[in-house]
Amino acid sequence: MAQPCVLYHFAFHPASRAARLALGEARIDWTDTPVRPWEPDCPLGALNPSGMPPVIQTADRGRDLTLCELPAILGWIEDQQKSPLLLSADVAERAEARRLTTWFESRFTDEVDAVLLHERMEKPLLKLGPPEARALRAGRDALKGHLALLDDMAGARDWLAGRRLSQADLIAAAHLSVLDYFGEVSWGGWPALRTWYSKIKSRPCFRPLLADRFIGVAPAATYADLDF
Amino acid sequence: MAQPCVLYHFAFHPASRAARLALGEARIDWTDTPVRPWEPDCPLGALNPSGMPPVIQTADRGRDLTLCELPAILGWIEDQQKSPLLLSADVAERAEARRLTTWFESRFTDEVDAVLLHERMEKPLLKLGPPEARALRAGRDALKGHLALLDDMAGARDWLAGRRLSQADLIAAAHLSVLDYFGEVSWGGWPALRTWYSKIKSRPCFRPLLADRFIGVAPAATYADLDF
Repeated sequence: MAQPCVLYHFAFHPASRAARLALGEARIDWTDTPVRPWEPDCPLGALNPSGMPPVIQTADRGRDLTLCELPAILGWIEDQQKSPLLLSADVAERAEARRLTTWFESRFTDEVDAVLLHERMEKPLLKLGPPEARALRAGRDALKGHLALLDDMAGARDWLAGRRLSQADLIAAAHLSVLDYFGEVSWGGWPALRTWYSKIKSRPCFRPLLADRFIGVAPAATYADLDF
Repeated sequence: MAQPCVLYHFAFHPASRAARLALGEARIDWTDTPVRPWEPDCPLGALNPSGMPPVIQTADRGRDLTLCELPAILGWIEDQQKSPLLLSADVAERAEARRLTTWFESRFTDEVDAVLLHERMEKPLLKLGPPEARALRAGRDALKGHLALLDDMAGARDWLAGRRLSQADLIAAAHLSVLDYFGEVSWGGWPALRTWYSKIKSRPCFRPLLADRFIGVAPAATYADLDF
């Protein structure tokens, strides 16, 4: 019997997006509960000590179960599978998917998201004033370096971590899709990465993300376009 | 047949320490290769795109295998076990261990390590001048908040994530042990956490860490003391 599964998420938070993609790939039905973690009455304050999404409330063998943070959600999904779903069965590809996950959750987050998404997304949300040109430039330069690395990877492999789709693809696509909404990804310069992104963008799990809208900012022209 | 296993690590890098503790708990023999990731000729430049430890070079069914970053190492260790070793079999405890791992690798790293270890460890290593009083104060205040949370947890449970030792304990102990070397942890104020730390400090996997020495800084008086 399917258990209720409530996902607390913020639509433009990369780890929240990765959780939605992973649930979709695993064909787990869930109820959407959008949250705004920067607001004092956000319900996550009582669920996750960090106060951040993604968080899942579900049940396991009759016991309530709360899953806080993306690794707990990805681990729980993978633990339920009869055969590997979001990690390859191949030991080297598993290691590579885990390396890339770490890369996005630390290096990419620090160098790109914390700069570029701060300027483009957090500043309007928190009413912190207009973006600063110097920070935008630094974030865009950092993003270019990451896109070059990812383009090489996408050109050499079927998926980022090897021959099959893995959690690394979902996490990479989650981060890039938020930046893409704000028009920050120039796909034309990275043909292999564009081919990879068009493959993942076409998957059913991606569809809900393409319908997300950020108040006051229209998506980039090709954001929801499968042929971009 | 046991495979060769070479661990590239820096003795006072928390994730490197967690890798040593995990290898020790799993009773995997390894060869120590200390590295200094901030030096231009560090061999990790050619092994891990991030240039950072911990990295393992080993072999799997005749193929060379490189494991970059702590999650790849912890995942590889766990994947080899017949029954769960550094994650509980209990679904809620697995989720809690993964939540705490994320907590240390992001929140604790940003709020405590990036401030306090920057002042106490990176500045002398990189010859960046003396520590700044204001940064030391901010880092110590942040650490106090984390210690209070951990003390509550240690008082309510056998181990941080529940009834058995998990990767969360190893990662927490890895971070706290580096801070402890520099005399930054006032154990007297946190009796439950001290009891937890004395349990983990007494495990055979911990012994090599207690012999580590940082050039130019003697360890805190009770750093290597099992009865502190």
